Amino acid sequence: MFEQLGLIGCGLMGGSFALACKRAGLVKRVVGYSKSPSTTERARQLGVIDVEAPSALLAVAGADLVLVAVPVAATEATLKAIKHLVTPRLLVMDVGSTKLDVVQAASRALREQIGSFVPAHPIAGREVSGVEHADANLYQGARVILTPFERTHSEQLENAERVWSAIGCRVSRMTPQEHDAGFAAVSHLPHLLAFAMLGSINAQPEAERLLALAGPGFRDFTRIAASDPVMWRDVLRANREQVLAQSQHFVQALELLQNAMRADDNGQMLQDLITLASTTRARWRLGDASLPTDH
Amino acid sequence: MFEQLGLIGCGLMGGSFALACKRAGLVKRVVGYSKSPSTTERARQLGVIDVEAPSALLAVAGADLVLVAVPVAATEATLKAIKHLVTPRLLVMDVGSTKLDVVQAASRALREQIGSFVPAHPIAGREVSGVEHADANLYQGARVILTPFERTHSEQLENAERVWSAIGCRVSRMTPQEHDAGFAAVSHLPHLLAFAMLGSINAQPEAERLLALAGPGFRDFTRIAASDPVMWRDVLRANREQVLAQSQHFVQALELLQNAMRADDNGQMLQDLITLASTTRARWRLGDASLPTDH
Repeated sequence: MFEQLGLIGCGLMGGSFALACKRAGLVKRVVGYSKSPSTTERARQLGVIDVEAPSALLAVAGADLVLVAVPVAATEATLKAIKHLVTPRLLVMDVGSTKLDVVQAASRALREQIGSFVPAHPIAGREVSGVEHADANLYQGARVILTPFERTHSEQLENAERVWSAIGCRVSRMTPQEHDAGFAAVSHLPHLLAFAMLGSINAQPEAERLLALAGPGFRDFTRIAASDPVMWRDVLRANREQVLAQSQHFVQALELLQNAMRADDNGQMLQDLITLASTTRARWRLGDASLPTDH
Repeated sequence: MFEQLGLIGCGLMGGSFALACKRAGLVKRVVGYSKSPSTTERARQLGVIDVEAPSALLAVAGADLVLVAVPVAATEATLKAIKHLVTPRLLVMDVGSTKLDVVQAASRALREQIGSFVPAHPIAGREVSGVEHADANLYQGARVILTPFERTHSEQLENAERVWSAIGCRVSRMTPQEHDAGFAAVSHLPHLLAFAMLGSINAQPEAERLLALAGPGFRDFTRIAASDPVMWRDVLRANREQVLAQSQHFVQALELLQNAMRADDNGQMLQDLITLASTTRARWRLGDASLPTDH
Protein backbone atom coordinates (compact mmCIF):
# COMPACT_ATOMS: atom_id res chain seq x y z
CA MET A 1 0.00 0.00 0.00
CA PHE A 2 2.89 2.38 0.80
CA GLU A 3 6.45 2.36 -0.37
CA GLN A 4 8.16 4.07 2.52
CA LEU A 5 7.27 5.06 6.07
CA GLY A 6 9.10 8.06 7.41
CA LEU A 7 9.10 7.67 11.18
CA ILE A 8 9.95 10.70 13.28
CA GLY A 9 10.36 9.66 16.88
CA CYS A 10 11.41 6.02 17.34
CA GLY A 11 9.96 5.49 20.83
CA LEU A 12 7.33 3.08 22.08
CA MET A 13 4.48 4.54 20.01
CA GLY A 14 6.41 5.20 16.81
CA GLY A 15 8.45 2.01 16.97
CA SER A 16 5.36 -0.14 17.57
CA PHE A 17 3.61 1.54 14.61
CA ALA A 18 6.59 0.76 12.34
CA LEU A 19 6.67 -2.89 13.45
CA ALA A 20 2.90 -3.26 13.01
CA CYS A 21 2.97 -1.67 9.53
CA LYS A 22 5.76 -3.96 8.41
CA ARG A 23 4.05 -7.05 9.78
CA ALA A 24 0.80 -6.07 8.02
CA GLY A 25 2.69 -5.60 4.73
CA LEU A 26 1.61 -1.95 4.65
CA VAL A 27 5.07 -0.49 4.02
CA LYS A 28 8.13 -1.80 2.25
CA ARG A 29 10.75 0.28 4.02
CA VAL A 30 10.98 2.34 7.19
CA VAL A 31 13.32 5.31 7.41
CA GLY A 32 13.54 6.58 10.96
CA TYR A 33 14.79 9.58 12.85
CA SER A 34 14.94 10.30 16.57
CA LYS A 35 16.30 13.39 18.29
CA SER A 36 18.88 11.23 20.00
CA PRO A 37 21.18 9.50 17.47
CA SER A 38 21.66 6.57 19.86
CA THR A 39 17.89 5.94 19.84
CA THR A 40 17.84 5.97 16.03
CA GLU A 41 20.76 3.55 15.98
CA ARG A 42 19.11 1.28 18.54
CA ALA A 43 15.89 1.31 16.49
CA ARG A 44 17.81 0.06 13.45
CA GLN A 45 19.66 -2.58 15.46
CA LEU A 46 16.33 -3.85 16.80
CA GLY A 47 14.87 -4.00 13.27
CA VAL A 48 12.24 -1.38 14.09
CA ILE A 49 13.51 0.84 11.25
CA ASP A 50 15.51 -0.15 8.17
CA VAL A 51 17.45 3.04 7.58
CA GLU A 52 18.65 5.75 9.98
CA ALA A 53 18.00 9.31 8.85
CA PRO A 54 20.20 12.13 10.20
CA SER A 55 17.29 14.59 10.35
CA ALA A 56 13.49 14.68 10.39
CA LEU A 57 13.50 16.15 6.88
CA LEU A 58 15.63 13.31 5.54
CA ALA A 59 13.35 10.74 7.18
CA VAL A 60 10.54 12.19 5.07
CA ALA A 61 12.47 12.28 1.80
CA GLY A 62 11.02 9.56 -0.44
CA ALA A 63 8.25 8.67 2.03
CA ASP A 64 4.57 8.39 1.09
CA LEU A 65 3.54 7.86 4.73
CA VAL A 66 4.89 9.83 7.70
CA LEU A 67 4.23 9.27 11.39
CA VAL A 68 5.24 12.01 13.81
CA ALA A 69 5.54 10.28 17.19
CA VAL A 70 7.21 12.97 19.28
CA PRO A 71 6.09 14.65 22.53
CA VAL A 72 3.06 16.86 21.75
CA ALA A 73 5.03 20.02 22.53
CA ALA A 74 7.54 19.15 19.79
CA THR A 75 4.90 18.69 17.07
CA GLU A 76 5.06 22.20 15.63
CA ALA A 77 8.86 22.31 15.32
CA THR A 78 8.88 18.83 13.79
CA LEU A 79 6.25 19.69 11.19
CA LYS A 80 8.07 22.93 10.35
CA ALA A 81 11.24 20.93 9.79
CA ILE A 82 9.57 18.64 7.24
CA LYS A 83 7.23 21.17 5.66
CA HIS A 84 9.12 21.47 2.37
CA LEU A 85 8.63 17.79 1.60
CA VAL A 86 4.91 17.66 2.48
CA THR A 87 2.88 17.29 -0.72
CA PRO A 88 -0.81 16.52 -1.27
CA ARG A 89 0.19 12.91 -1.99
CA LEU A 90 1.87 12.41 1.37
CA LEU A 91 -0.13 11.25 4.39
CA VAL A 92 1.22 12.71 7.63
CA MET A 93 -0.18 11.64 11.02
CA ASP A 94 0.67 12.09 14.67
CA VAL A 95 -0.16 10.02 17.77
CA GLY A 96 -0.68 12.81 20.31
CA SER A 97 -3.02 12.52 23.28
CA THR A 98 -4.39 16.03 22.73
CA LYS A 99 -5.73 17.23 19.40
CA LEU A 100 -6.82 20.86 19.40
CA ASP A 101 -3.28 22.11 20.11
CA VAL A 102 -1.89 19.67 17.53
CA VAL A 103 -4.29 20.93 14.86
CA GLN A 104 -3.34 24.51 15.67
CA ALA A 105 0.38 23.72 15.64
CA ALA A 106 0.04 21.80 12.36
CA SER A 107 -1.90 24.67 10.76
CA ARG A 108 0.86 27.11 11.72
CA ALA A 109 3.63 24.78 10.59
CA LEU A 110 2.23 23.29 7.39
CA ARG A 111 0.09 26.23 6.13
CA GLU A 112 -1.11 25.44 2.59
CA GLN A 113 -0.06 21.77 3.00
CA ILE A 114 -2.21 21.23 6.09
CA GLY A 115 -4.63 19.03 4.10
CA SER A 116 -2.11 16.18 4.16
CA PHE A 117 -2.14 16.05 7.93
CA VAL A 118 -4.61 13.70 9.66
CA PRO A 119 -4.49 14.05 13.45
CA ALA A 120 -4.65 10.64 15.13
CA HIS A 121 -4.82 9.46 18.72
CA PRO A 122 -4.38 5.73 19.21
CA ILE A 123 -5.66 4.72 22.67
CA ALA A 124 -2.72 2.52 23.47
CA GLY A 125 0.40 2.82 25.50
CA ARG A 126 2.37 1.43 28.37
CA GLU A 127 4.00 2.82 31.46
CA VAL A 128 7.34 1.96 29.91
CA SER A 129 8.76 3.99 27.08
CA GLY A 130 11.58 3.67 24.61
CA VAL A 131 12.20 1.72 21.42
CA GLU A 132 13.24 -1.36 23.45
CA HIS A 133 9.56 -1.84 24.32
CA ALA A 134 8.27 -1.35 20.76
CA ASP A 135 5.78 -4.12 20.07
CA ALA A 136 4.00 -5.03 16.82
CA ASN A 137 0.93 -5.90 18.94
CA LEU A 138 0.62 -2.60 20.82
CA TYR A 139 -2.16 -1.31 18.58
CA GLN A 140 -3.95 -4.63 18.06
CA GLY A 141 -7.59 -4.15 19.05
CA ALA A 142 -7.00 -0.57 20.19
CA ARG A 143 -9.30 2.31 19.39
CA VAL A 144 -7.90 5.13 17.24
CA ILE A 145 -9.57 8.51 17.14
CA LEU A 146 -9.03 10.59 14.01
CA THR A 147 -9.89 14.26 14.39
CA PRO A 148 -10.13 15.74 10.88
CA PHE A 149 -10.97 19.42 10.47
CA GLU A 150 -12.36 21.49 7.61
CA ARG A 151 -9.09 21.53 5.62
CA THR A 152 -8.26 17.82 5.90
CA HIS A 153 -8.18 16.13 2.46
CA SER A 154 -10.86 13.46 2.42
CA GLU A 155 -8.59 11.16 0.41
CA GLN A 156 -5.91 11.29 3.09
CA LEU A 157 -8.51 10.82 5.81
CA GLU A 158 -9.62 7.61 4.09
CA ASN A 159 -6.01 6.50 3.72
CA ALA A 160 -5.47 7.13 7.41
CA GLU A 161 -8.48 4.98 8.27
CA ARG A 162 -7.15 2.17 6.08
CA VAL A 163 -3.72 2.30 7.72
CA TRP A 164 -4.99 2.03 11.31
CA SER A 165 -7.57 -0.59 10.37
CA ALA A 166 -4.88 -2.65 8.66
CA ILE A 167 -2.86 -2.83 11.88
CA GLY A 168 -5.88 -3.99 13.86
CA CYS A 169 -7.36 -0.77 15.23
CA ARG A 170 -11.00 0.26 15.50
CA VAL A 171 -11.20 3.73 13.97
CA SER A 172 -13.52 6.54 15.11
CA ARG A 173 -13.85 10.18 14.06
CA MET A 174 -14.44 13.14 16.34
CA THR A 175 -13.82 16.85 16.16
CA PRO A 176 -10.61 17.99 17.92
CA GLN A 177 -12.79 19.82 20.47
CA GLU A 178 -14.94 16.78 21.28
CA HIS A 179 -11.79 14.69 21.55
CA ASP A 180 -10.07 16.97 24.03
CA ALA A 181 -13.15 17.42 26.20
CA GLY A 182 -13.78 13.68 26.32
CA PHE A 183 -10.22 12.62 27.06
CA ALA A 184 -9.86 15.29 29.72
CA ALA A 185 -12.55 13.34 31.61
CA VAL A 186 -11.52 9.72 31.05
CA SER A 187 -7.75 9.91 30.62
CA HIS A 188 -6.10 13.22 31.50
CA LEU A 189 -7.95 13.67 34.81
CA PRO A 190 -7.26 10.09 35.98
CA HIS A 191 -3.56 10.68 35.29
CA LEU A 192 -3.64 13.96 37.21
CA LEU A 193 -5.37 12.20 40.14
CA ALA A 194 -2.87 9.34 40.12
CA PHE A 195 0.01 11.86 40.20
CA ALA A 196 -1.73 13.65 43.07
CA MET A 197 -2.19 10.36 44.96
CA LEU A 198 1.56 9.70 44.88
CA GLY A 199 2.25 13.36 45.63
CA SER A 200 -0.04 13.17 48.65
CA ILE A 201 1.80 10.15 50.05
CA ASN A 202 5.23 11.61 49.27
CA ALA A 203 4.33 14.77 51.19
CA GLN A 204 3.83 12.78 54.40
CA PRO A 205 6.84 12.02 56.62
CA GLU A 206 5.84 8.33 56.86
CA ALA A 207 5.68 7.91 53.04
CA GLU A 208 7.95 4.84 52.91
CA ARG A 209 5.98 3.10 55.62
CA LEU A 210 2.70 3.84 53.89
CA LEU A 211 3.93 2.52 50.55
CA ALA A 212 5.02 -0.71 52.24
CA LEU A 213 1.38 -1.31 53.22
CA ALA A 214 -0.05 -0.80 49.76
CA GLY A 215 -1.68 -3.76 48.02
CA PRO A 216 -3.12 -4.76 44.64
CA GLY A 217 -5.84 -2.07 44.68
CA PHE A 218 -3.21 0.64 45.07
CA ARG A 219 -1.08 -1.01 42.39
CA ASP A 220 -3.79 -0.78 39.75
CA PHE A 221 -5.11 2.61 40.88
CA THR A 222 -1.66 4.21 40.58
CA ARG A 223 -0.34 2.29 37.56
CA ILE A 224 -0.78 5.33 35.29
CA ALA A 225 1.20 7.51 37.74
CA ALA A 226 4.36 5.83 36.41
CA SER A 227 3.76 7.35 32.95
CA ASP A 228 6.30 9.51 31.16
CA PRO A 229 6.58 12.92 32.92
CA VAL A 230 7.45 15.01 29.86
CA MET A 231 4.63 13.58 27.80
CA TRP A 232 2.12 14.17 30.59
CA ARG A 233 3.43 17.63 31.38
CA ASP A 234 2.67 18.50 27.76
CA VAL A 235 -0.74 16.82 27.70
CA LEU A 236 -1.91 18.48 30.90
CA ARG A 237 -0.70 21.89 29.75
CA ALA A 238 -2.04 21.55 26.22
CA ASN A 239 -5.51 20.56 27.47
CA ARG A 240 -5.37 22.65 30.64
CA GLU A 241 -8.83 24.25 30.53
CA GLN A 242 -10.70 20.99 29.94
CA VAL A 243 -8.65 19.13 32.55
CA LEU A 244 -9.19 21.85 35.16
CA ALA A 245 -12.92 21.80 34.41
CA GLN A 246 -13.02 18.02 34.89
CA SER A 247 -10.95 18.38 38.03
CA GLN A 248 -13.62 20.70 39.40
CA HIS A 249 -16.34 18.13 38.60
CA PHE A 250 -14.25 15.56 40.42
CA VAL A 251 -13.73 17.64 43.55
CA GLN A 252 -17.50 18.18 43.72
CA ALA A 253 -18.10 14.44 43.51
CA LEU A 254 -15.46 13.88 46.21
CA GLU A 255 -17.08 16.47 48.48
CA LEU A 256 -20.44 14.76 48.02
CA LEU A 257 -18.89 11.50 49.22
CA GLN A 258 -17.16 13.25 52.14
CA ASN A 259 -20.47 14.78 53.22
CA ALA A 260 -22.09 11.37 52.96
CA MET A 261 -19.36 9.90 55.19
CA ARG A 262 -20.23 12.50 57.82
CA ALA A 263 -24.03 12.25 57.43
CA ASP A 264 -26.07 10.95 60.34
CA ASP A 265 -28.17 8.59 58.18
CA ASN A 266 -26.70 5.12 58.93
CA GLY A 267 -24.62 5.45 55.80
CA GLN A 268 -27.56 5.42 53.42
CA MET A 269 -26.37 8.31 51.23
CA LEU A 270 -22.83 6.92 51.19
CA GLN A 271 -24.10 3.49 50.20
CA ASP A 272 -26.24 4.98 47.43
CA LEU A 273 -23.31 6.97 46.00
CA ILE A 274 -20.96 3.97 46.12
CA THR A 275 -23.61 1.70 44.61
CA LEU A 276 -24.05 4.06 41.66
CA ALA A 277 -20.29 4.21 41.12
CA SER A 278 -19.85 0.48 41.55
CA THR A 279 -22.73 -0.41 39.22
CA THR A 280 -21.50 2.00 36.55
CA ARG A 281 -17.99 0.60 36.73
CA ALA A 282 -19.09 -3.04 36.80
CA ARG A 283 -21.27 -2.47 33.73
CA TRP A 284 -18.51 -0.70 31.81
CA ARG A 285 -16.26 -2.88 29.69
CA LEU A 286 -13.26 -1.73 27.72
CA GLY A 287 -14.26 -1.33 24.10
CA ASP A 288 -17.86 -2.42 24.75
CA ALA A 289 -19.56 0.81 23.87
CA SER A 290 -19.56 2.22 20.38
CA LEU A 291 -18.93 5.86 19.84
CA PRO A 292 -21.82 7.72 18.23
CA THR A 293 -19.33 8.94 15.62
CA ASP A 294 -18.15 5.42 14.69
CA HIS A 295 -18.78 4.50 11.11
CA MET B 1 -3.45 -28.51 63.59
CA PHE B 2 -7.16 -27.77 64.15
CA GLU B 3 -10.11 -30.11 64.31
CA GLN B 4 -12.87 -27.84 63.14
CA LEU B 5 -13.15 -24.44 61.53
CA GLY B 6 -16.30 -22.54 62.32
CA LEU B 7 -16.85 -20.16 59.40
CA ILE B 8 -19.27 -17.30 59.89
CA GLY B 9 -19.85 -15.59 56.55
CA CYS B 10 -19.35 -17.85 53.53
CA GLY B 11 -18.50 -15.15 51.00
CA LEU B 12 -15.36 -14.60 48.92
CA MET B 13 -13.07 -13.95 51.89
CA GLY B 14 -14.47 -16.60 54.25
CA GLY B 15 -14.96 -19.22 51.58
CA SER B 16 -11.43 -18.76 50.23
CA PHE B 17 -10.04 -19.07 53.77
CA ALA B 18 -11.92 -22.35 54.27
CA LEU B 19 -10.65 -23.77 50.97
CA ALA B 20 -7.08 -22.69 51.71
CA CYS B 21 -7.16 -24.20 55.22
CA LYS B 22 -8.46 -27.49 53.92
CA ARG B 23 -5.90 -27.64 51.14
CA ALA B 24 -3.10 -26.90 53.63
CA GLY B 25 -4.37 -29.69 55.92
CA LEU B 26 -4.93 -27.14 58.69
CA VAL B 27 -8.49 -28.17 59.51
CA LYS B 28 -10.34 -31.46 59.28
CA ARG B 29 -13.85 -30.13 59.02
CA VAL B 30 -15.53 -26.84 58.18
CA VAL B 31 -18.90 -25.93 59.65
CA GLY B 32 -20.29 -22.82 58.01
CA TYR B 33 -23.01 -20.29 58.52
CA SER B 34 -24.14 -17.36 56.39
CA LYS B 35 -26.95 -14.93 57.07
CA SER B 36 -28.67 -16.11 53.91
CA PRO B 37 -29.52 -19.84 54.07
CA SER B 38 -29.14 -20.12 50.31
CA THR B 39 -25.52 -18.92 50.57
CA THR B 40 -24.79 -21.51 53.25
CA GLU B 41 -26.36 -24.20 51.09
CA ARG B 42 -24.41 -23.06 48.03
CA ALA B 43 -21.18 -23.11 50.06
CA ARG B 44 -21.80 -26.74 50.98
CA GLN B 45 -22.72 -27.68 47.40
CA LEU B 46 -19.47 -26.12 46.20
CA GLY B 47 -17.45 -28.01 48.82
CA VAL B 48 -16.37 -24.80 50.55
CA ILE B 49 -17.90 -26.00 53.84
CA ASP B 50 -18.68 -29.55 54.95
CA VAL B 51 -21.65 -28.89 57.20
CA GLU B 52 -24.31 -26.15 57.19
CA ALA B 53 -25.01 -24.56 60.56
CA PRO B 54 -28.39 -22.90 61.16
CA SER B 55 -26.89 -20.13 63.31
CA ALA B 56 -23.56 -18.44 64.02
CA LEU B 57 -23.52 -20.00 67.49
CA LEU B 58 -23.97 -23.51 66.09
CA ALA B 59 -21.16 -22.91 63.57
CA VAL B 60 -18.89 -22.31 66.55
CA ALA B 61 -20.03 -25.35 68.56
CA GLY B 62 -17.18 -27.87 68.52
CA ALA B 63 -14.80 -25.52 66.67
CA ASP B 64 -11.24 -24.77 67.80
CA LEU B 65 -10.78 -22.14 65.07
CA VAL B 66 -13.36 -19.51 64.10
CA LEU B 67 -13.24 -17.01 61.26
CA VAL B 68 -15.74 -14.17 61.28
CA ALA B 69 -15.90 -12.97 57.67
CA VAL B 70 -18.90 -10.68 57.75
CA PRO B 71 -19.23 -6.97 56.85
CA VAL B 72 -17.32 -4.93 59.45
CA ALA B 73 -20.55 -3.36 60.72
CA ALA B 74 -21.91 -6.82 61.59
CA THR B 75 -18.86 -7.84 63.67
CA GLU B 76 -20.21 -6.84 67.06
CA ALA B 77 -23.57 -8.58 66.67
CA THR B 78 -21.84 -11.70 65.34
CA LEU B 79 -19.38 -11.88 68.24
CA LYS B 80 -22.21 -11.31 70.73
CA ALA B 81 -24.08 -14.21 69.17
CA ILE B 82 -21.15 -16.62 69.67
CA LYS B 83 -19.85 -15.22 72.95
CA HIS B 84 -21.04 -18.13 75.11
CA LEU B 85 -18.90 -20.61 73.21
CA VAL B 86 -15.71 -18.50 73.17
CA THR B 87 -13.16 -20.06 75.54
CA PRO B 88 -9.45 -19.32 76.05
CA ARG B 89 -8.66 -22.38 73.87
CA LEU B 90 -10.60 -21.06 70.87
CA LEU B 91 -8.90 -18.83 68.32
CA VAL B 92 -11.31 -16.29 66.81
CA MET B 93 -10.25 -14.00 63.95
CA ASP B 94 -11.87 -11.57 61.56
CA VAL B 95 -10.85 -10.32 58.10
CA GLY B 96 -12.03 -6.72 58.33
CA SER B 97 -10.36 -3.84 56.47
CA THR B 98 -10.54 -1.59 59.54
CA LYS B 99 -9.25 -2.61 62.92
CA LEU B 100 -9.80 0.01 65.65
CA ASP B 101 -13.59 -0.27 65.37
CA VAL B 102 -13.33 -4.07 65.24
CA VAL B 103 -11.24 -4.15 68.43
CA GLN B 104 -13.75 -1.89 70.16
CA ALA B 105 -16.70 -3.95 68.95
CA ALA B 106 -14.97 -7.19 70.00
CA SER B 107 -14.17 -5.78 73.45
CA ARG B 108 -17.82 -4.86 73.97
CA ALA B 109 -19.09 -8.18 72.65
CA LEU B 110 -16.62 -10.67 74.12
CA ARG B 111 -15.73 -8.90 77.42
CA GLU B 112 -13.67 -11.31 79.56
CA GLN B 113 -13.14 -13.63 76.55
CA ILE B 114 -11.58 -10.90 74.39
CA GLY B 115 -8.11 -12.54 74.70
CA SER B 116 -9.17 -15.25 72.24
CA PHE B 117 -9.79 -12.71 69.52
CA VAL B 118 -6.93 -11.86 67.13
CA PRO B 119 -7.89 -9.08 64.69
CA ALA B 120 -6.62 -9.87 61.19
CA HIS B 121 -6.63 -8.01 57.88
CA PRO B 122 -5.56 -10.06 54.89
CA ILE B 123 -4.63 -7.72 52.00
CA ALA B 124 -6.48 -9.71 49.40
CA GLY B 125 -9.76 -9.45 47.61
CA ARG B 126 -11.45 -9.14 44.29
CA GLU B 127 -14.03 -6.87 42.77
CA VAL B 128 -16.35 -9.86 42.66
CA SER B 129 -17.95 -11.20 45.80
CA GLY B 130 -19.85 -14.32 46.79
CA VAL B 131 -18.99 -17.91 47.56
CA GLU B 132 -19.00 -18.77 43.83
CA HIS B 133 -15.70 -16.88 43.57
CA ALA B 134 -14.09 -18.50 46.61
CA ASP B 135 -10.59 -19.55 45.64
CA ALA B 136 -8.02 -21.57 47.61
CA ASN B 137 -5.31 -19.32 46.07
CA LEU B 138 -6.79 -15.96 47.10
CA TYR B 139 -4.44 -15.57 50.08
CA GLN B 140 -1.35 -17.12 48.47
CA GLY B 141 1.50 -14.63 48.78
CA ALA B 142 -0.75 -11.98 50.33
CA ARG B 143 0.23 -9.86 53.29
CA VAL B 144 -1.81 -10.27 56.48
CA ILE B 145 -1.73 -7.65 59.20
CA LEU B 146 -2.51 -8.81 62.74
CA THR B 147 -3.38 -6.03 65.16
CA PRO B 148 -3.12 -7.48 68.68
CA PHE B 149 -3.85 -5.24 71.67
CA GLU B 150 -2.98 -5.42 75.35
CA ARG B 151 -5.50 -8.13 76.18
CA THR B 152 -4.73 -10.48 73.28
CA HIS B 153 -3.46 -13.88 74.50
CA SER B 154 0.07 -14.34 73.18
CA GLU B 155 -0.60 -18.04 72.57
CA GLN B 156 -3.55 -17.25 70.31
CA LEU B 157 -1.53 -14.56 68.55
CA GLU B 158 1.12 -17.16 67.73
CA ASN B 159 -1.54 -19.60 66.58
CA ALA B 160 -2.98 -16.90 64.33
CA GLU B 161 0.45 -16.30 62.78
CA ARG B 162 0.85 -20.01 62.13
CA VAL B 163 -2.55 -20.27 60.44
CA TRP B 164 -1.98 -17.43 57.99
CA SER B 165 1.60 -18.51 57.29
CA ALA B 166 0.41 -22.04 56.58
CA ILE B 167 -1.93 -20.79 53.83
CA GLY B 168 0.88 -18.82 52.20
CA CYS B 169 0.58 -15.36 53.73
CA ARG B 170 3.31 -13.01 54.91
CA VAL B 171 2.31 -11.95 58.42
CA SER B 172 2.99 -8.53 59.97
CA ARG B 173 1.93 -6.98 63.27
CA MET B 174 0.78 -3.40 63.83
CA THR B 175 -1.31 -1.63 66.42
CA PRO B 176 -4.95 -1.11 65.39
CA GLN B 177 -4.27 2.67 65.26
CA GLU B 178 -1.22 2.33 62.98
CA HIS B 179 -3.18 -0.03 60.79
CA ASP B 180 -6.14 2.28 60.31
CA ALA B 181 -3.99 5.36 59.66
CA GLY B 182 -1.87 3.50 57.10
CA PHE B 183 -4.73 1.87 55.22
CA ALA B 184 -6.66 5.13 55.12
CA ALA B 185 -3.79 6.42 52.94
CA VAL B 186 -3.09 3.46 50.65
CA SER B 187 -6.42 1.70 50.41
CA HIS B 188 -9.46 3.55 51.75
CA LEU B 189 -8.61 6.87 50.09
CA PRO B 190 -7.93 5.28 46.67
CA HIS B 191 -11.33 3.59 46.89
CA LEU B 192 -12.99 6.88 47.81
CA LEU B 193 -11.26 8.58 44.86
CA ALA B 194 -12.26 5.84 42.44
CA PHE B 195 -15.90 6.15 43.59
CA ALA B 196 -15.63 9.93 43.14
CA MET B 197 -14.18 9.48 39.62
CA LEU B 198 -17.21 7.45 38.54
CA GLY B 199 -19.52 9.83 40.41
CA SER B 200 -17.96 12.76 38.58
CA ILE B 201 -18.57 11.18 35.18
CA ASN B 202 -22.08 10.05 36.10
CA ALA B 203 -22.97 13.61 37.09
CA GLN B 204 -22.27 14.86 33.56
CA PRO B 205 -25.03 14.67 30.93
CA GLU B 206 -22.63 13.10 28.41
CA ALA B 207 -21.62 10.29 30.81
CA GLU B 208 -22.29 7.44 28.37
CA ARG B 209 -20.31 9.12 25.63
CA LEU B 210 -17.39 9.75 27.96
CA LEU B 211 -17.32 6.14 29.18
CA ALA B 212 -17.24 4.95 25.56
CA LEU B 213 -13.93 6.82 25.14
CA ALA B 214 -12.25 5.31 28.17
CA GLY B 215 -9.23 3.08 27.65
CA PRO B 216 -6.92 0.75 29.59
CA GLY B 217 -5.65 3.53 31.91
CA PHE B 218 -9.20 4.26 33.03
CA ARG B 219 -9.90 0.55 33.38
CA ASP B 220 -7.11 0.01 35.90
CA PHE B 221 -7.58 3.34 37.68
CA THR B 222 -11.25 2.62 38.35
CA ARG B 223 -11.06 -1.14 38.91
CA ILE B 224 -11.54 -0.73 42.68
CA ALA B 225 -14.66 1.40 42.11
CA ALA B 226 -16.52 -1.83 41.30
CA SER B 227 -15.98 -3.08 44.88
CA ASP B 228 -18.83 -4.12 47.17
CA PRO B 229 -20.84 -1.01 48.22
CA VAL B 230 -21.94 -2.26 51.65
CA MET B 231 -18.45 -3.33 52.64
CA TRP B 232 -16.98 -0.01 51.55
CA ARG B 233 -19.76 2.03 53.13
CA ASP B 234 -18.78 0.37 56.43
CA VAL B 235 -15.02 0.77 55.93
CA LEU B 236 -15.28 4.46 55.04
CA ARG B 237 -17.57 5.15 57.97
CA ALA B 238 -15.59 3.09 60.47
CA ASN B 239 -12.33 4.82 59.54
CA ARG B 240 -13.92 8.19 58.73
CA GLU B 241 -11.51 10.53 60.54
CA GLN B 242 -8.37 8.98 59.06
CA VAL B 243 -9.88 8.83 55.57
CA LEU B 244 -11.03 12.46 55.71
CA ALA B 245 -7.55 13.48 56.89
CA GLN B 246 -5.96 11.63 53.97
CA SER B 247 -8.53 13.13 51.64
CA GLN B 248 -7.39 16.57 52.76
CA HIS B 249 -3.74 15.67 52.04
CA PHE B 250 -4.85 14.52 48.61
CA VAL B 251 -6.76 17.68 47.75
CA GLN B 252 -3.68 19.71 48.70
CA ALA B 253 -1.52 17.61 46.37
CA LEU B 254 -4.12 18.03 43.62
CA GLU B 255 -4.19 21.81 44.11
CA LEU B 256 -0.40 21.90 43.86
CA LEU B 257 -0.62 20.15 40.50
CA GLN B 258 -3.43 22.45 39.34
CA ASN B 259 -1.33 25.49 40.24
CA ALA B 260 1.60 23.99 38.38
CA MET B 261 -0.62 23.51 35.29
CA ARG B 262 -1.42 27.22 35.41
CA ALA B 263 2.13 28.41 36.19
CA ASP B 264 3.97 30.51 33.64
CA ASP B 265 7.22 28.52 33.90
CA ASN B 266 7.25 26.38 30.71
CA GLY B 267 5.83 23.54 32.75
CA GLN B 268 8.89 23.12 34.95
CA MET B 269 7.02 22.80 38.25
CA LEU B 270 4.47 20.47 36.68
CA GLN B 271 7.22 18.31 35.23
CA ASP B 272 8.98 18.18 38.60
CA LEU B 273 5.81 17.12 40.43
CA ILE B 274 4.97 14.45 37.85
CA THR B 275 8.56 13.20 37.83
CA LEU B 276 8.50 12.74 41.60
CA ALA B 277 5.18 10.87 41.41
CA SER B 278 6.30 8.79 38.45
CA THR B 279 9.65 7.87 39.99
CA THR B 280 8.05 6.92 43.29
CA ARG B 281 5.48 4.75 41.56
CA ALA B 282 7.98 3.13 39.21
CA ARG B 283 10.24 2.25 42.15
CA TRP B 284 7.39 0.81 44.19
CA ARG B 285 6.68 -2.88 43.76
CA LEU B 286 3.91 -4.84 45.40
CA GLY B 287 5.30 -6.68 48.41
CA ASP B 288 8.83 -5.38 47.87
CA ALA B 289 9.13 -3.35 51.01
CA SER B 290 9.15 -4.92 54.44
CA LEU B 291 7.18 -3.40 57.23
CA PRO B 292 9.27 -2.21 60.15
CA THR B 293 7.03 -4.33 62.38
CA ASP B 294 7.65 -7.53 60.42
CA HIS B 295 9.27 -10.25 62.42
